[in-house]
Amino acid sequence: MTDQDPGTRDGHDPDREEFAHDPVDHVAVEAGMSVGDVVSAYGDGGIGAQRLHEAVDIYVEMLEADASVFFALAGAMVPAGMRTIVADLIRDGHIDALVTTGANLTHDSIEAIGGKHHHGREGTPDHSQREHDEKLRTEEVDRIYNVYLPQEHFTLFENHLRDEVFPTVESEGTVSIQRFTEVLGRANSAVNDGEDIPERPGIAAAAFEHDVPIYCPGIQDSVLGLQAWIYSQTSRFSLDALSDMADLNDQAYEADRAGAVVVGGGVPKNYVLQTMLVAPDAYDYGVQLTMDPPETGGLSGASLEEARSWGKLQPSARNVSVYADATLTLPLLVAAARERLD
Amino acid sequence: MTDQDPGTRDGHDPDREEFAHDPVDHVAVEAGMSVGDVVSAYGDGGIGAQRLHEAVDIYVEMLEADASVFFALAGAMVPAGMRTIVADLIRDGHIDALVTTGANLTHDSIEAIGGKHHHGREGTPDHSQREHDEKLRTEEVDRIYNVYLPQEHFTLFENHLRDEVFPTVESEGTVSIQRFTEVLGRANSAVNDGEDIPERPGIAAAAFEHDVPIYCPGIQDSVLGLQAWIYSQTSRFSLDALSDMADLNDQAYEADRAGAVVVGGGVPKNYVLQTMLVAPDAYDYGVQLTMDPPETGGLSGASLEEARSWGKLQPSARNVSVYADATLTLPLLVAAARERLD
Amino acid sequence: MTDQDPGTRDGHDPDREEFAHDPVDHVAVEAGMSVGDVVSAYGDGGIGAQRLHEAVDIYVEMLEADASVFFALAGAMVPAGMRTIVADLIRDGHIDALVTTGANLTHDSIEAIGGKHHHGREGTPDHSQREHDEKLRTEEVDRIYNVYLPQEHFTLFENHLRDEVFPTVESEGTVSIQRFTEVLGRANSAVNDGEDIPERPGIAAAAFEHDVPIYCPGIQDSVLGLQAWIYSQTSRFSLDALSDMADLNDQAYEADRAGAVVVGGGVPKNYVLQTMLVAPDAYDYGVQLTMDPPETGGLSGASLEEARSWGKLQPSARNVSVYADATLTLPLLVAAARERLD
Amino acid sequence: MTDQDPGTRDGHDPDREEFAHDPVDHVAVEAGMSVGDVVSAYGDGGIGAQRLHEAVDIYVEMLEADASVFFALAGAMVPAGMRTIVADLIRDGHIDALVTTGANLTHDSIEAIGGKHHHGREGTPDHSQREHDEKLRTEEVDRIYNVYLPQEHFTLFENHLRDEVFPTVESEGTVSIQRFTEVLGRANSAVNDGEDIPERPGIAAAAFEHDVPIYCPGIQDSVLGLQAWIYSQTSRFSLDALSDMADLNDQAYEADRAGAVVVGGGVPKNYVLQTMLVAPDAYDYGVQLTMDPPETGGLSGASLEEARSWGKLQPSARNVSVYADATLTLPLLVAAARERLD
Repeated sequence: MTDQDPGTRDGHDPDREEFAHDPVDHVAVEAGMSVGDVVSAYGDGGIGAQRLHEAVDIYVEMLEADASVFFALAGAMVPAGMRTIVADLIRDGHIDALVTTGANLTHDSIEAIGGKHHHGREGTPDHSQREHDEKLRTEEVDRIYNVYLPQEHFTLFENHLRDEVFPTVESEGTVSIQRFTEVLGRANSAVNDGEDIPERPGIAAAAFEHDVPIYCPGIQDSVLGLQAWIYSQTSRFSLDALSDMADLNDQAYEADRAGAVVVGGGVPKNYVLQTMLVAPDAYDYGVQLTMDPPETGGLSGASLEEARSWGKLQPSARNVSVYADATLTLPLLVAAARERLD
Repeated sequence: MTDQDPGTRDGHDPDREEFAHDPVDHVAVEAGMSVGDVVSAYGDGGIGAQRLHEAVDIYVEMLEADASVFFALAGAMVPAGMRTIVADLIRDGHIDALVTTGANLTHDSIEAIGGKHHHGREGTPDHSQREHDEKLRTEEVDRIYNVYLPQEHFTLFENHLRDEVFPTVESEGTVSIQRFTEVLGRANSAVNDGEDIPERPGIAAAAFEHDVPIYCPGIQDSVLGLQAWIYSQTSRFSLDALSDMADLNDQAYEADRAGAVVVGGGVPKNYVLQTMLVAPDAYDYGVQLTMDPPETGGLSGASLEEARSWGKLQPSARNVSVYADATLTLPLLVAAARERLD
Repeated sequence: MTDQDPGTRDGHDPDREEFAHDPVDHVAVEAGMSVGDVVSAYGDGGIGAQRLHEAVDIYVEMLEADASVFFALAGAMVPAGMRTIVADLIRDGHIDALVTTGANLTHDSIEAIGGKHHHGREGTPDHSQREHDEKLRTEEVDRIYNVYLPQEHFTLFENHLRDEVFPTVESEGTVSIQRFTEVLGRANSAVNDGEDIPERPGIAAAAFEHDVPIYCPGIQDSVLGLQAWIYSQTSRFSLDALSDMADLNDQAYEADRAGAVVVGGGVPKNYVLQTMLVAPDAYDYGVQLTMDPPETGGLSGASLEEARSWGKLQPSARNVSVYADATLTLPLLVAAARERLD
Repeated sequence: MTDQDPGTRDGHDPDREEFAHDPVDHVAVEAGMSVGDVVSAYGDGGIGAQRLHEAVDIYVEMLEADASVFFALAGAMVPAGMRTIVADLIRDGHIDALVTTGANLTHDSIEAIGGKHHHGREGTPDHSQREHDEKLRTEEVDRIYNVYLPQEHFTLFENHLRDEVFPTVESEGTVSIQRFTEVLGRANSAVNDGEDIPERPGIAAAAFEHDVPIYCPGIQDSVLGLQAWIYSQTSRFSLDALSDMADLNDQAYEADRAGAVVVGGGVPKNYVLQTMLVAPDAYDYGVQLTMDPPETGGLSGASLEEARSWGKLQPSARNVSVYADATLTLPLLVAAARERLD
């Protein structure tokens, strides 16, 4: 060992050493660099930069290994503008099962029928306070952090459900939640027929078009769920909470290799992970984009290592958690992976 | 206005002023002070101390006004030891509807039948790492942050469900989730019959004994949900996802005054709040204990002000969010409120 | 091993096992319980509750071992009302060296001369927004999260410095920062002479009265530092940045046993910890109360384990980090320790 | 207003409305897109994506207006690999005054003399635990989150200081901290003379070469500060804590337009902001990249709006805070701004 090479420890068992020579190179950036370039540069750095680089690495390996991708999408991602990215992943065959929330499906459908979310008045308000939210209430506009949605869109959404979705599912009686989201996707897909508005159809439509199942275990907890309940009051329609679990578990059972991509926490995260509790194997790859730190003790911020103790990840699985706003990291992950796969 | 009294602004319209004279007194503590005393002292301070004081104030007002209390309990609270507090609140009549997760019901039931969670090996490990979780996997112990649970308890839990719960619900065919949690509570309550182990029955048992409904919209997302699904495969039993929404919404509809107590985020939080979307009024009181900051943009950390824009809180509702670990703040909130009510 | 005792593993080497039998008992609370009682109850739980219980344990052991206590107090704790607690700790002999910020000394002195901080207008505003801060600017009121301070207090503070502090230090030429804070403490202590306003003198005064040194390495970064600089422009007074380091390091060097109590992060945290880099030993006890998670990668949220790699903590040192608002946990820690020591 | 255009509110006073029509377009990404492209796409989204887009906008406007840029760089950014980015900003004339920590200057100098930081053994460990840090201690390696540094580099750094830095400053007696960092920068710059290792010189060297002052108010709180103190013990050298404040304040005073770029919190953040307390004007632009949420109540997470109440920002100043890991956002900000300016 020399001064110039302080890390190598010849003659030692590397397994017994915590330190190994693997220098940090300094991140450099330049005008016009691609997202793939900046992610490569991240790999030279530490903290979150290194983690995002590792996430892209694992994600690309997952896709190149043709693993079945179980994708968890938590709640505010569609209002935050992540709808097209997820729909395109479905179209590209990069999602085999999607687990998401009723909220995302609600907001996805509102956009599918021509509705729009809006940026908050001040662009990026530092905060909003009681009187602002009172004013929004008066103006009949709902706030999701710095995104606004006029309430009239919920009325248009209700009409869409009553005209295009409920008649079909009613005729089938009690259906699984996955079947319900499929009919919703078909209806969203059909809105656009014959027109050239490519971004409109969205996630549920893309999933319908490409036979990708959408699971939504807590669907009741959303405007979509409320509407389903209201309709169920006066019809023979209802939703079976358990009957689509066989399909998801079969997908997990049959996957030769499986990867989990977890965006945000909550029910989607755990539902993706827990499906391995009834499968013979577990995830071979795991990537988590979250802003919840593990210190809350809650599931949302829990490390993927914790999932390993439960047997949800293979002992040999590569995994990483990136602790940063997923509205920033999801576009980077997908753009960098596309560039690498090209 | 004098130098000694810099805050009063006589002759001004107080509505137009941001500043009002309301001095911070310094928090003082002493040996033997009660929890109520320390919460009073918090009221002299700022940041989170002031918020917790306000939370106790609102919570006591909610209870004294005899408001219907809708209580949201997110995921890791039972493993973290908050089970008895919640069960006692039910016994005291301080919860009118409980919305929680399948995970909490699973862990609550495991304790009801004599199982135990355990403190992590190092008491309060700063962190845990891959190899520790691999070792736990080998030892068949699941980790929930710094709490461990031997997997054999899941087998005992499965036996309990198969012996005491499923036969009853199977005979009823497809039941609502609320009905299912009620049968679970009855079974948990019965385990203890004739014995003097007061802490064992827990949340579901107390809810059964006191006719408090438990709602669990994402129940599939838990070991309890997985077991229900497995059983449903070979029986005519299933769970209806929508049929108990009428009961919850009726409770909201009929409440003269209503309060939301939100512990953690996720589905329980939103489900408690959204029920007001189909009620003529909204919450008169809101208390939220969370560690998620609003800056993630997600529902879990969203302020209760945001809920106001949706009409989930009354324009005049008092509300506060306390941003700190709920395993610390929930015991303080309840102990201080009890002391005040005494 | 029996079903009733799933954790014991007779015949195994306990060092090789991750799991050890140490059941979580459920936290129970009741009206009138003391802070010591609730902290004992926390010890039955997990996540942050368990950590705070451990913190009290370590802190009491630290005090009972008569360790030298190096206390780090970060920035907003005085405006948030934690001034009397810290001053009382000094009076009780529970702090041997205090490392804090110029901001805390500024706000401590403002209160010492009769100034007051104030609760924000709405008590506990969920958030504040641009226009509110603009209004405060017009009203000449500074905001520190949910605490307000009229700017005129800075003028009174300047007068106090010019009348009572600078003449003394000017006569000494260039002084150490510690000496400067000592003279400030003497001046704050003297304000109150002959009057019965016990809470006024505060931290700097108590430190002066009890010969406890206050270190403030980044003093320039505060209104106190700005005033010192302005005065230095027209006098021969200045502050030596290095000359008090010998005293702090001597304290560390000479301590038979040493404990670090870290409230918040920043410079105070690291300055307390780094002093052990030039001492033969290291901290025997460490307690950290913070809301910064480790995932930022910054020093403020770094675990005390990380400090162990640097040799700032003894290999055998007991330590714990409590991730929750310190305005909640500091009063609990101190009240519970007092009760235990009584 | 039509159904297709739900947001416009013709005939209304826009100042009285909270809601304005400003639709969220969905973020789309593709292989090979540039960083500037992805930042443009962020502008279509909400939450943090929108904020980062706004940050680039403000930053570019700041640079195009030829504002004086006061740049705050908190502690772990150099170990995390952000050294070259900051050095290049200095070389490009995009930083007029740098406020940073002794830790950053220490780690910057260690790299300047050929030392290297290293990635943690497992690349991106989820967490590290007591025994790992104990092992690192035995191996004489210091940990900074997921970055490792062999302690021998501190010895080489000490030699560099004793050979190249202290002799110069000793001859000047007591010097300002800014002067000390300037001599350090000159020494770092000279190491590389005649060799072609462009990335080595780093931040302090670039600042020396381009006459950009570095301010470091809490310099004592670092290995650099400890070494300065040790040297001062046996020489007539010391550091004056106040004497460089005139230069910084003059820069603020004389700036026609001024912008604050704040990376992380702590002393650098506030020191950059507070300099406007003694200037006639205040910042015209503010960009903050941080992972600390405002809810801690501390300065590090405080919004820039809060700074407005103190008069540190102009009433009309554009500003934004991006709540995400700065090791991710700083490279994006700089690369996107470079692309826009090209």
